[in-house]
Amino acid sequence: MKDIDWPKVAADLAPIECIVDRALVRQKSRDFFWYSPVLNEKLKGVRGDLVVCPASEEEVVRTLAYCHAHRIAVTPRGAGTGNYGQAMPLQGGVVLDLSRLDRFLWLKDGVTRVQAGLKLIDLEAKSLPQGWELRFHPSTRRTATIGGFVAGGSGGVGSVQFGGLRNRGNVLGLRVITMEARPRVLELAGDDVMPAVHAYGTNGIITELELPLARAWPWQETLVAFADIGHATAFGNALGEADGIIKKLITAFDWSTAQYFKPLLPHMPQGQAIVLCMIADSSREPFATLAAEMGGAIVFERAYGRESDDIPPLYEFTWNHTTLWALKADRSITYLQCLFNGPDYLDKIARTIATFGDETPMHLEFTRFDGHVAAFGLQLVRFTSEQRLYEIIGWLEANGVPVADPHTFVLEDGGMKTVDAAQLAFKRRNDPQGLLNPGKMKAWTETSLTGVSLT
Amino acid sequence: MKDIDWPKVAADLAPIECIVDRALVRQKSRDFFWYSPVLNEKLKGVRGDLVVCPASEEEVVRTLAYCHAHRIAVTPRGAGTGNYGQAMPLQGGVVLDLSRLDRFLWLKDGVTRVQAGLKLIDLEAKSLPQGWELRFHPSTRRTATIGGFVAGGSGGVGSVQFGGLRNRGNVLGLRVITMEARPRVLELAGDDVMPAVHAYGTNGIITELELPLARAWPWQETLVAFADIGHATAFGNALGEADGIIKKLITAFDWSTAQYFKPLLPHMPQGQAIVLCMIADSSREPFATLAAEMGGAIVFERAYGRESDDIPPLYEFTWNHTTLWALKADRSITYLQCLFNGPDYLDKIARTIATFGDETPMHLEFTRFDGHVAAFGLQLVRFTSEQRLYEIIGWLEANGVPVADPHTFVLEDGGMKTVDAAQLAFKRRNDPQGLLNPGKMKAWTETSLTGVSLT
Repeated sequence: MKDIDWPKVAADLAPIECIVDRALVRQKSRDFFWYSPVLNEKLKGVRGDLVVCPASEEEVVRTLAYCHAHRIAVTPRGAGTGNYGQAMPLQGGVVLDLSRLDRFLWLKDGVTRVQAGLKLIDLEAKSLPQGWELRFHPSTRRTATIGGFVAGGSGGVGSVQFGGLRNRGNVLGLRVITMEARPRVLELAGDDVMPAVHAYGTNGIITELELPLARAWPWQETLVAFADIGHATAFGNALGEADGIIKKLITAFDWSTAQYFKPLLPHMPQGQAIVLCMIADSSREPFATLAAEMGGAIVFERAYGRESDDIPPLYEFTWNHTTLWALKADRSITYLQCLFNGPDYLDKIARTIATFGDETPMHLEFTRFDGHVAAFGLQLVRFTSEQRLYEIIGWLEANGVPVADPHTFVLEDGGMKTVDAAQLAFKRRNDPQGLLNPGKMKAWTETSLTGVSLT
Repeated sequence: MKDIDWPKVAADLAPIECIVDRALVRQKSRDFFWYSPVLNEKLKGVRGDLVVCPASEEEVVRTLAYCHAHRIAVTPRGAGTGNYGQAMPLQGGVVLDLSRLDRFLWLKDGVTRVQAGLKLIDLEAKSLPQGWELRFHPSTRRTATIGGFVAGGSGGVGSVQFGGLRNRGNVLGLRVITMEARPRVLELAGDDVMPAVHAYGTNGIITELELPLARAWPWQETLVAFADIGHATAFGNALGEADGIIKKLITAFDWSTAQYFKPLLPHMPQGQAIVLCMIADSSREPFATLAAEMGGAIVFERAYGRESDDIPPLYEFTWNHTTLWALKADRSITYLQCLFNGPDYLDKIARTIATFGDETPMHLEFTRFDGHVAAFGLQLVRFTSEQRLYEIIGWLEANGVPVADPHTFVLEDGGMKTVDAAQLAFKRRNDPQGLLNPGKMKAWTETSLTGVSLT
């Protein structure tokens, strides 16, 4: 995009807010790709040329029509909290910052409709007084946008109750703008939302979302210490399977991981494995009984929502935040994303720990997966080389543990969801010139180069 | 209890309300044991001698002390909605009607404390305006008492989310009066409640309960028709495992069972299998998509709470009410209670259907069971003889389908929970003379006769 006069583009788009300042554009071009040393090498030089910040759907449409006319790549972003380059503008061009589309439109009978740039925390600030909360959210609840989460995320805090974005029923509707001479406004409902969920904005720009919420419970945050990760894992599973104990979050760490949680160090017995939970108020007693029965000691308890300056909400030690705490202490650390699933999933976890030990400090996020309890492994990795990283990934996959590789920005190779023909067909219809977040959807890149049509 | 002067007992107990009228006493001595032709033979002549209706805990204590002093058997009852003689006074004596202990004491942070005789419907009339509902309830919600349910039931509508009474965390506290010269008032909490749950009041009289509630959702009642019970069962399982679809009830019937639901006949296509569900409002769309995908047709929908004179709440066609509809049409029908569980539970269901066909018209209640989806089989039985009934039960148990025999009033042989040493020890401490609901706890009867001590 070298021969484009970016100040002129900004002037053409006026009064739509644009950012041309190089330092600011660079800052607004980045996400958390640097979690991965592999992606860091590939993406550290990547930047957009212009950030466009529409404040209305009309401004989104105008921007897309303009960019389509001028063959300018457009990469959408929310808050840029993704961890594997979802929002990185590989070919430069326009970064479409949707964070000003932040209106809470309505909430009725447990369904809310909001604009894509609304922050999760602001969504819940509106819904909680009406007795509703998000079914699940990433650990970036205080910074991320809802559109960014649905376009680039998969699950999070609450998935132990409701599964993730891949599950039918967790996203009810999307409003999507196409990348054409005259951008169309699509209202997707039912299964039709799926091609645009976790598609990184490659096949349309999400401007509004219709989401089913969960009834809000009063929650307790708690830490339970165990002698070792084996006991912690057994407890995580037992708690997940305890139908009479209401929970929103079950995360297990061995000490190699937990040692990086600086604010929690005064509360965690040195060398022990930790299970971090969010439990309904009314489940505290049976939770404590189960913990004691399985050898655990409750070492920290706090009502959810009462975070202090010293200790942030406990969910900010879970999911992708876990890795962030480790990275703060040791820049050489990275992580994995895999799924321990099936009747023998606890065995798979035990074998992984036995095989890699402290090379991959354990971090487990218990989840519902198609109606039963499973665990995502987001274990840390003491990175030595890309080759060794892929040896570990190879071992996991050979041992029945699928890996959603967080060291690639290619949609098909990462994430928790594969690109199917429907998703590609959706891009063909909505972005025939391939200008949306280019370079991310392999199926598109390959068929474009070879002229093969999958439709 | 022939030599007791019952009018004198009533006079001694005054001003505690007593019923001496023979017809009324007989009526208040009965439950729904006649669901079973086997129990009907054994229990049809059973009646108490006096019904005592205390209006306060003090009156309960006074009644128990008096009966202890005079060696009078005491059999507690709520509304008498049990199906296998739980409340039948085998040795006559006093029937302790607890329905006047009906106070709603408090509700805080999702926990409620109520007196044992409070009806389920009245409990929810108080809790729903505060946004809370029972985690699960039997199909007798409109008539049963909460104490009767906890003392004689196991699970019900909502168990597909929260499991049953056997699951830790679903009963938080019980207040229990012992049967001694000076009855003690016990406050049980945590796992200590377990010996008194589903014990038919054999080891203490429950006067108050502390129960964790569930956040109340707006629900939809719905009927889905399928070509056959195989498709209906597959749908029930898929819906149970669909983490993104919120449900409170999933019940499957083949036509042989559904044909008895007279008020629903105008809505059910003749000859089809039916799945009856309660679904959160916000899950209607994904529910309909799943139903269509699996070959189902939604034939009835109604907002929960909008029942008409024509069609009662749909839960009144499920759980033990199902059998009642069949009995209204055909007095020779009875039923079973079994558990289809394990990774091959759908196969077990299919084999049961293939083996018994129309002799046991199918009725499945999908439930969570230790963290996964399973189904209780409450199939109807076209009864021919007790011998044949136990042949069927024998086949089920031999094929990995445990049966909670509803054709016995013996605690250990029926229900969903076995009597353990703790439960027996609890009776030894609380009812040393064996006066509470005598004849129901086999372990007691046997050790009393032989003098063997298990403690």
